[in-house]
Amino acid sequence: MKGMDERLLNGLYTDRYELTMALAYWREGRAEEPAVFDTFFRKAPLDGGFAVFAGLGSLLEALEAFRYSDDDLAFLEKDGFPVDFLEYLASFRFRGALLAPPEGEVVFPLETVVRVEGGLLEAQILETMVLNVLNFQTLIATKAARCRRSAGERALSEFGLRRAQGLGGLWASRAACIGGCDTTSNMAAARRWNLAAAGTMAHSFIQSYDDELTAFRRFAAAHGDATVLLLDTYDTLRSGLPNAIRVAREMGECGQSLKAVRLDSGDLAYLARKVREGLDEAGLEKVGIFASNQLDEYVIQSLLRQDAPIDAFGIGTSLATGQPDAALDGVYKLSEAGGKVRMKTSETVAKATFPGRKAVTRYYDSDGMMLADAIHLTDEEPPDRMCHPYEPHSSLSLAGRENRPLLTEVVSDGRPVIDPVSVADAAKYAREAIGTLPAEHQRLENPHIYKVGLSPRLRDLRDDWLQQNRKAMES
Amino acid sequence: MKGMDERLLNGLYTDRYELTMALAYWREGRAEEPAVFDTFFRKAPLDGGFAVFAGLGSLLEALEAFRYSDDDLAFLEKDGFPVDFLEYLASFRFRGALLAPPEGEVVFPLETVVRVEGGLLEAQILETMVLNVLNFQTLIATKAARCRRSAGERALSEFGLRRAQGLGGLWASRAACIGGCDTTSNMAAARRWNLAAAGTMAHSFIQSYDDELTAFRRFAAAHGDATVLLLDTYDTLRSGLPNAIRVAREMGECGQSLKAVRLDSGDLAYLARKVREGLDEAGLEKVGIFASNQLDEYVIQSLLRQDAPIDAFGIGTSLATGQPDAALDGVYKLSEAGGKVRMKTSETVAKATFPGRKAVTRYYDSDGMMLADAIHLTDEEPPDRMCHPYEPHSSLSLAGRENRPLLTEVVSDGRPVIDPVSVADAAKYAREAIGTLPAEHQRLENPHIYKVGLSPRLRDLRDDWLQQNRKAMES
Repeated sequence: MKGMDERLLNGLYTDRYELTMALAYWREGRAEEPAVFDTFFRKAPLDGGFAVFAGLGSLLEALEAFRYSDDDLAFLEKDGFPVDFLEYLASFRFRGALLAPPEGEVVFPLETVVRVEGGLLEAQILETMVLNVLNFQTLIATKAARCRRSAGERALSEFGLRRAQGLGGLWASRAACIGGCDTTSNMAAARRWNLAAAGTMAHSFIQSYDDELTAFRRFAAAHGDATVLLLDTYDTLRSGLPNAIRVAREMGECGQSLKAVRLDSGDLAYLARKVREGLDEAGLEKVGIFASNQLDEYVIQSLLRQDAPIDAFGIGTSLATGQPDAALDGVYKLSEAGGKVRMKTSETVAKATFPGRKAVTRYYDSDGMMLADAIHLTDEEPPDRMCHPYEPHSSLSLAGRENRPLLTEVVSDGRPVIDPVSVADAAKYAREAIGTLPAEHQRLENPHIYKVGLSPRLRDLRDDWLQQNRKAMES
Repeated sequence: MKGMDERLLNGLYTDRYELTMALAYWREGRAEEPAVFDTFFRKAPLDGGFAVFAGLGSLLEALEAFRYSDDDLAFLEKDGFPVDFLEYLASFRFRGALLAPPEGEVVFPLETVVRVEGGLLEAQILETMVLNVLNFQTLIATKAARCRRSAGERALSEFGLRRAQGLGGLWASRAACIGGCDTTSNMAAARRWNLAAAGTMAHSFIQSYDDELTAFRRFAAAHGDATVLLLDTYDTLRSGLPNAIRVAREMGECGQSLKAVRLDSGDLAYLARKVREGLDEAGLEKVGIFASNQLDEYVIQSLLRQDAPIDAFGIGTSLATGQPDAALDGVYKLSEAGGKVRMKTSETVAKATFPGRKAVTRYYDSDGMMLADAIHLTDEEPPDRMCHPYEPHSSLSLAGRENRPLLTEVVSDGRPVIDPVSVADAAKYAREAIGTLPAEHQRLENPHIYKVGLSPRLRDLRDDWLQQNRKAMES
């Protein structure tokens, strides 16, 4: 049972250009030249102020599987790669280090989220896989955290597999449960990561009977106290509700209880109120109301601001696909090679990368709430003052603040050095971490920007490089 | 080597509610009651006028693998399903029929795209998987077709794996190559479906050297005539271009040719023109220009309207994730059960489904161009006149038009009855099918709506049902 998806995970989980670069490095004997890469993103997803780091567990499994079988090598030979290079790849495995936050950590734009250290070839070749796993799962965990913020303590279920991006739906459910969902409808994901599975009934079940009342009765007969009845196949208030009340009473006569009813169309605020009234009048105060149909963090917020008496939400497409973004623009950039600092310069300072081997230190205020993150070089102490990354005259004192490193080593000499993290652990970590993020950074729209800065030394190193490059271009 | 992803594909590739419904059907002895389900979508993706049907090959593989192993059953038992039902699932396999268009076919809103016929339980339980595969691959193939329309005959490569939705990236590349891409950067997908793989170099390769010229030389030494050089690591026109010209000349002295240069930032129209001039002045007319960086069908259209001298495009995130939609809202609806017509009614006629076992016939004009599609009952001949689905007084004569059925049987008695279709075959089919779709339906924005109508008998059946339901609700 180890891994339902490991057959996808091998050394071909990459873009072709990683291999063309690898070949060139190998030809020149540069494969093992020490190198450092940073993964980071430039803008928080979904117009928000933060992201929930997810995918680390999947990445460690993919890393373990990143090898080349004889079949893989035969394909690469057919694709034009020379045989002597393929002999090298036959024994390839990553032997370097990965540093990362715990899965579920709150992270921000510009800061290094994962640092990869190793030989130039092995560290380069992982790029596509690292980004593919982390970009997607971080996007979905962040979306789920936003939905959780809107839903408060109400139950939240991820329902999106049917419109998820194919096999991507498997990881969507994993990440949604890290970011804030209680359950998922996705059975493959539930088995794979020990998630709680949830599900009710479809309209087709009701349509398959000659009348709705019979359908409700038969479903209740099969499911007893777990029964949730869908009300809107014909008409929510004129048919679904009275039939559900009748079945709930019949169940009561047999010592059973209807668990909930589900609303899946129409004006959910209005219908929830009417259905609640109807249920309460029938003495069915304990029957819950479950709502679905194109929900997202904004719709949930609106429903609850209208005091809609909804106990649980099912969120499908927008969560499983991370709409409206659909992708997180994380990048993977070289910051050191051959013992030298490296940097991508650019015509605009905002598109340049930060050079050198970098750590991130998180600072807290006296109430234990997150205050700021400083990016600095690994060979300097966490700074007492940090500089704005792009505003030359703006800085922030960090003196005397509690702090801790954001990244710790998770892979060393190519092997995981942390225990496998369960989705439940990561979800708990996320909940607690989000609890230390001040509310103004959590707003759905126009959040207060969390401060991420540079140590003075890193800032100077970056500026010197930019200036040198400018001179070189002008000469 | 059969299937890299089959470990994902099994009977748990489903939402939990399919199984709760299945349990209820099985308890009542209704599992084998004959049923018919339709898959269709209500709105063309990406604000366009058509969709390219993709995913059939993947669906047939997933269908073959849709079984329950002992591990799967142990999970379901832990999840609360009763042992006698699990004994039934142990020998479950789909024994019904699937009808579908060829992969690569052009399809439209409202019409049945896949018809599933079988026992009520087996046909219901496939819902999630059918939708997951077809919704995603059809979205991506349609996006690729739109990019192809903008790019004309220029080379088009799919580059999106790093920001694709996790494992979904595998199918994204497959579908992109069906819809119109020539190549993909995704090595796993290239091996799996025999796609042409393409790739150049990243900025990190150049940064890893002390200077750009050395990096270009070393890459050219490793790749010879396949060399593509990335120009924008430091400065496209002041550094990248002169260095590339120098290396191209050095290659020429050794009897080699630089294949192309790549532009990945800045104003691509301006830079392409400047780079073309520079290359031409250096006698390097044959060196191609490859452009990437947040491209989509609109940017490509704009670049070519400005006569940007670009020979090839690499399209990443927007293609691999189907932005801006990110999902196609295909649904799976019951239309017949137990020998009776079934229909989801609704307060609005546009949200009701079409009842009964339905076929789709496509009609052509005298030039062999697509004219209209009629949805009708399987027990009637293709109609000579079709009705607008929602406008009571609008109809279209189809008398004397060439026509053919859109759907044919692809699975019978649970087994595929068509030969496996390669991506190359599906891509060829798509290209030819799109060639018969009049240009006004292919416009990127505000396309002319292709006519999809109902046979008079189907329209009357639908209207009678709606009226009966209305009466029942009012009584």
